[in-house]
Amino acid sequence: MTLISADKDFAARLKAQFSDDIVADTEPRYLEEPRGTWQGRPTLVARPRNVEEVAGIIRAASEARVPVIPYGGGTGLVGAQISPEGALPLILSLERMTAVRAVWPEENVLIVEAGVILADVQTAARDAGRLFPLSLAAEGTARIGGNLATNAGGTGVLRYGNTRDLCLGLEAVLPDGQIWHGLRRLRKDNTGYDLRNLLIGSEGTLGVITAAAMKMFPQPHDTGTAVFSVASPAAALTLLSMARERLGDMVSAFELISGQGLAFLRQELPEIRQPFEVAPDWSVLIEVGVAAGMTAQSALEDLFEHALERDLVSDGVIAQSAQQSDAFWSVREHIPEANKRIGAVVSSDVSLPLGALADFIKAGPARIAGVGEFRINCFGHMGDGNLHYNIFPVEGRSKKDHLGDRENVQRAIHDLVHEFDGSFSAEHGVGRLKVGDLERYGDPAKLSAMRAIKQALDPSGIMNPGAVLRA
Amino acid sequence: MTLISADKDFAARLKAQFSDDIVADTEPRYLEEPRGTWQGRPTLVARPRNVEEVAGIIRAASEARVPVIPYGGGTGLVGAQISPEGALPLILSLERMTAVRAVWPEENVLIVEAGVILADVQTAARDAGRLFPLSLAAEGTARIGGNLATNAGGTGVLRYGNTRDLCLGLEAVLPDGQIWHGLRRLRKDNTGYDLRNLLIGSEGTLGVITAAAMKMFPQPHDTGTAVFSVASPAAALTLLSMARERLGDMVSAFELISGQGLAFLRQELPEIRQPFEVAPDWSVLIEVGVAAGMTAQSALEDLFEHALERDLVSDGVIAQSAQQSDAFWSVREHIPEANKRIGAVVSSDVSLPLGALADFIKAGPARIAGVGEFRINCFGHMGDGNLHYNIFPVEGRSKKDHLGDRENVQRAIHDLVHEFDGSFSAEHGVGRLKVGDLERYGDPAKLSAMRAIKQALDPSGIMNPGAVLRA
Repeated sequence: MTLISADKDFAARLKAQFSDDIVADTEPRYLEEPRGTWQGRPTLVARPRNVEEVAGIIRAASEARVPVIPYGGGTGLVGAQISPEGALPLILSLERMTAVRAVWPEENVLIVEAGVILADVQTAARDAGRLFPLSLAAEGTARIGGNLATNAGGTGVLRYGNTRDLCLGLEAVLPDGQIWHGLRRLRKDNTGYDLRNLLIGSEGTLGVITAAAMKMFPQPHDTGTAVFSVASPAAALTLLSMARERLGDMVSAFELISGQGLAFLRQELPEIRQPFEVAPDWSVLIEVGVAAGMTAQSALEDLFEHALERDLVSDGVIAQSAQQSDAFWSVREHIPEANKRIGAVVSSDVSLPLGALADFIKAGPARIAGVGEFRINCFGHMGDGNLHYNIFPVEGRSKKDHLGDRENVQRAIHDLVHEFDGSFSAEHGVGRLKVGDLERYGDPAKLSAMRAIKQALDPSGIMNPGAVLRA
Repeated sequence: MTLISADKDFAARLKAQFSDDIVADTEPRYLEEPRGTWQGRPTLVARPRNVEEVAGIIRAASEARVPVIPYGGGTGLVGAQISPEGALPLILSLERMTAVRAVWPEENVLIVEAGVILADVQTAARDAGRLFPLSLAAEGTARIGGNLATNAGGTGVLRYGNTRDLCLGLEAVLPDGQIWHGLRRLRKDNTGYDLRNLLIGSEGTLGVITAAAMKMFPQPHDTGTAVFSVASPAAALTLLSMARERLGDMVSAFELISGQGLAFLRQELPEIRQPFEVAPDWSVLIEVGVAAGMTAQSALEDLFEHALERDLVSDGVIAQSAQQSDAFWSVREHIPEANKRIGAVVSSDVSLPLGALADFIKAGPARIAGVGEFRINCFGHMGDGNLHYNIFPVEGRSKKDHLGDRENVQRAIHDLVHEFDGSFSAEHGVGRLKVGDLERYGDPAKLSAMRAIKQALDPSGIMNPGAVLRA
């Protein structure tokens, strides 16, 4: 069905129906995305204040056949928030819906509107003596609605799951403008198809999430962080298995760091203090959060001793203070910034079965070498099987020298991932960047079911056309 | 669209296409269900050996417009496995697909076919030194495909989640006969709509699950069980909150037991030894599974002392052996059998927000008294907000005396649950029993989305017609 650009008449109609300030011309910030791969075109942005206004806007867009892009913090890395082509969309920003509607500490539940910034959800939980565990680099800007729409991952997944796993209920506007009042606070509810999980991760193509009931958790009695150097990714995996056998879900993060990553960091951000004098080829950052009666430090010491006995680790530093913990995390969290300064030819966000991870890392360099000469920085959320497998020019060359190689490098990585039964998108989603990958690597039956569902729920195709599925 | 009964011609066609023993007349076991509410009609049962045969059968049924009921262990409690009316269905039993296809202990993953009996999944995990935590009364008969199709709950949900939360990937046949090869073993995979969770809990109305990649967990280092008597459901909830704050996810079960339940048990099954001489009005069974370096018993003693200080508990027994643990569980697990012998007028499976649970239990008796004079046995998985709120005749009367009251009693309970934002089906599903409840209490936008999805994926309506949604 032909879509119609959002134009002055459409703006006038929305203003007449709601208020003069419901819609405006887009400022540049709505048209940019973090990696600079796409550029949006100037158009209209609507900023509703409540779910009824969202529903009214969607109904108006549906009648006028104007495409709609639900918009959170704009921090997505796969271009789902940008419309580079086709009819000009209405950007539907949730930024005015920032209420924390309710907090039930004893239930470990809070209800937040879609526009609440992730860091503010964390704060609301902390103020109630609880933990909201979703944590990722963009948490000061990202909004919870966007985190839900993309099923965001981050550093807490090993212990607490993806955003999907943290959500108990949703309020959302479906593409026909109906409001789904699904803000359940229930741990068990078997009453029909799982519409909640269908909307989560659908990247704005099946509706607009306007509020969510999210899980909180008791704060761990004590938390601690350590960095251990390991002989190899395989040793790191054995260490992970040992840690989980000894400490169960008290292991809350297990991050792989490569020597290449630490070298980039030393070169680009020398002010970040590194835990080891000589950067090991492979190291892991481990975080634990322990129960009453235990201390994080003794749990980490105990783990280190057992790992040393089995030759899994060669060196280790256990943080002696919260400040030192932060310093360790700072190393991990500045790796992407150092990468950015070096300039990646390709950044990947892949996941592998844990049992295939070491073999994948071993097989990678030869595959990449088949395309050309590059440096590899492989790091990430190893506990979740999630690697950021990023490819850089050798010294003396820049990413601009490799513009023509990008597609081949990316293909080599994704092919290898596919051979190991992995995923070409672990936590960032499909967006516009990976529509072709989904068509290439996705299961045909799943794809045809997805298309049928999209057609059934959004027959005029107004919701974020071109994201996830080709428009 | 008119559906056509499975008949001799259809059987002949399947036999010609596959083998003589692919299809047979139904034995009575396929036509019965545990509560005896429905009776199926004699028809055909197909027993495919692999996913290709399942796909071929579904294609044949689709072409012939024969309705299909995917069939697991037949233990469902809401009649989803029975066809009491309409065109005679083909029962599609997964009982021959019982392979454990692969086990990866180091990944904590195993892949099982849909026909594997739940207890055998548990055994496969145990043999690999791991825990498969789904556990429920029917585990010796229920098959994992049925557990997935109904998103089964059980006693381990507090710690490990529902069946949904234990599943990483599915292989399934969609209503058009396409095979979805979705047996991912990934903890993170954001590549399109969540077809897995859509099929889980859809009770055979959107496809046939043929195999699943399921999570395993490290076995806890030590487990222990205790029964504490509590002053009230409100005190039990505060105790739950305290237990989770102190022990986090090491609390693996938290079951509420009422004095009425213990009285029924003493009357009907006096050989089951009860932990207290005088049955308390309210008690809770707590199970913990602790990490290395801790003992379950000291964790439970510590919890009891803290609870005693705050007047939450008045008495308690901590199991001193695995045998005593089993004895405590036996009390909990025989309550349904005692209920059955007494004869319930109505059995409910409801869930409430944890914060509303105590008020619901307080408000219940007056509501029920408004319908007539009854005894209430309220018990269940309190940690999940899941109550089995069952209604019995007073002494000297029988459930037969109340046949005319059933609907009113059920309505009174479900109305009250709805007022407290609860669910009329926590873990049993909708099946045929609760289609009317879903229409009455379900959100209209969700229902219309469900109908659109059903129509999109199963346009001829052959998959389990009349379950979940009215045919």
